Amino acid sequence: MSEQTNRRLIGELWQRMGRFDFESAGALLHDDYVCELPQSKERIRGRENFVAINQDYPGRWRTSVQRVLVNGEQAASEVVLTCDDQTVIAVSFYEIRDGKIYREVDYWPEPYAAPEWRTRWVERT
Amino acid sequence: MSEQTNRRLIGELWQRMGRFDFESAGALLHDDYVCELPQSKERIRGRENFVAINQDYPGRWRTSVQRVLVNGEQAASEVVLTCDDQTVIAVSFYEIRDGKIYREVDYWPEPYAAPEWRTRWVERT
Repeated sequence: MSEQTNRRLIGELWQRMGRFDFESAGALLHDDYVCELPQSKERIRGRENFVAINQDYPGRWRTSVQRVLVNGEQAASEVVLTCDDQTVIAVSFYEIRDGKIYREVDYWPEPYAAPEWRTRWVERT
Repeated sequence: MSEQTNRRLIGELWQRMGRFDFESAGALLHDDYVCELPQSKERIRGRENFVAINQDYPGRWRTSVQRVLVNGEQAASEVVLTCDDQTVIAVSFYEIRDGKIYREVDYWPEPYAAPEWRTRWVERT
């Protein structure tokens, strides 16, 4: 697939996620889809588990895609999710096969306190 | 610059970081380099601050680049850093200008406990 098609695929995934339309988001996944969550050492295998987890998730977030990079059959995205007054960031890497999302690695980086030792070399934002 | 050149730039950055050669890593940064650390709400502005922070960092890590994506003048990387028995992951997005790293956004996703509620839909890794 062209990079343009692959970019559209990732955009479409997040659009459908943002509509809480998880069945139709699942339709963008390859039959052999596997998603790794390295931080929690979890693996989601297959469309059905993907849909079930998202349907069961208690919150309803707003999604805002910050960027999508496409490099051949690989892609990366940075998405801000807002739910009530909570904001979380999802950073994902994808491998695309047959026009579907075949592999995914998801990171959910959480806030941490700015370390004291480097205070003099940074600005606060 | 070509995507190939930009890929080499990101690879070179991590090679020099892995040699703790921060001055020469700094030479790959644009004069107007800015790095955002959204988790800690910090911003590193300029080569000198980048070099100082890295030189002052107490640990000596081994770096292993898991992947680099290049999309025009944008790039993303996923790097595993190992220091003693600690492993951390750095996920970075870059904007390249004039063959140098102009903007960077760094995420340092930390481990979290696998949530109870989704146990039945995931495998443990």
